[in-house]
Amino acid sequence: MQQRAKDTRLSVIEGAARVFAEIGYGNASLTDITKRAGVTKGALYFHFTSKRELALAVIEEQHATVLAAGAKILSSEAPALEKLLGLCRMFGQQLLEEPVVQGGIRLTFEASAFDADVSGPYQDWINTTEELLRQAVLDGSIRADLDASAFARYLVASFTGVQLVSDVLTSRADVLLRIEQMWEFLLPALRPALRS
Amino acid sequence: MQQRAKDTRLSVIEGAARVFAEIGYGNASLTDITKRAGVTKGALYFHFTSKRELALAVIEEQHATVLAAGAKILSSEAPALEKLLGLCRMFGQQLLEEPVVQGGIRLTFEASAFDADVSGPYQDWINTTEELLRQAVLDGSIRADLDASAFARYLVASFTGVQLVSDVLTSRADVLLRIEQMWEFLLPALRPALRS
Repeated sequence: MQQRAKDTRLSVIEGAARVFAEIGYGNASLTDITKRAGVTKGALYFHFTSKRELALAVIEEQHATVLAAGAKILSSEAPALEKLLGLCRMFGQQLLEEPVVQGGIRLTFEASAFDADVSGPYQDWINTTEELLRQAVLDGSIRADLDASAFARYLVASFTGVQLVSDVLTSRADVLLRIEQMWEFLLPALRPALRS
Repeated sequence: MQQRAKDTRLSVIEGAARVFAEIGYGNASLTDITKRAGVTKGALYFHFTSKRELALAVIEEQHATVLAAGAKILSSEAPALEKLLGLCRMFGQQLLEEPVVQGGIRLTFEASAFDADVSGPYQDWINTTEELLRQAVLDGSIRADLDASAFARYLVASFTGVQLVSDVLTSRADVLLRIEQMWEFLLPALRPALRS
């Protein structure tokens, strides 16, 4: 794709993400989206043939955006457990700042409205979490007998609920605080047993 | 309301809950709902003037159903912490068995599609949880310095995420197991400090 076409495609996705974040899938129209993206209907239809296709592209772009920010943390020299906390904070920050992430997450919860399978991103995060937990077991910072697979699944589910409920009750105003509290309550389960 | 009118209203709510649970708010039509409920359009319109009003009634009925089941647990002689675990298991069981609960929870996640404020049920469960935690502090089964308000909020958020992710990844097949694992990972944060 030429650069200009790529730029237009991204503008459409970003405009769509803002509209979906604000009014949800069911209420959004392609007219709203072209207006917000500052493109013509022709330009939109060159890249996307339906609202559903656009919603799937926003979810994909959201996941790619968070993964890209996560890659920096994952490639750092920090210990594995610190990386895991860093990933959660980064995701929380992106929920506050990035329209593509806000739109993508809202669409993920509404995915049943357009028959989308959103298990992929969840599974990605569960796998990344499990890998970091196994490293943290190896470096001795968490207990060796942890069921890393079950904990990884729980952490991703728990993070999902924390940001969802923060959105319902405070429009995400307290999401970063609630992520810190989540970790406060989870760390005791990870602590290595004291040697006797 | 006469008993017959009450029965019809409940049939409509139950039919609507089944339709919403299966295809979501956006895809459901009042025609689908009258068919599923086995009532005429006239009977439906006697009780509800719009799909939105019906969706709000399903959410209300869902919350009432779970609260009623919860009341039995709350009025039992069990210690507070056991009541809290019991409430989570009961809610998980109802998610597996009760169409009204399945429909209401799906609508709660889709609430933005019909501009519904769903903070009330979350806040109810947070308050109930906080009260049980305070009782558990008093009976010595959890640590006295716990931030009960923060933990109550976290538990409700965490439960929400656990059942949501179980639905996305396994259509709730593993929801009861995941609720047990949640408690396994949370109990260490509640344990009273060993006396030295």
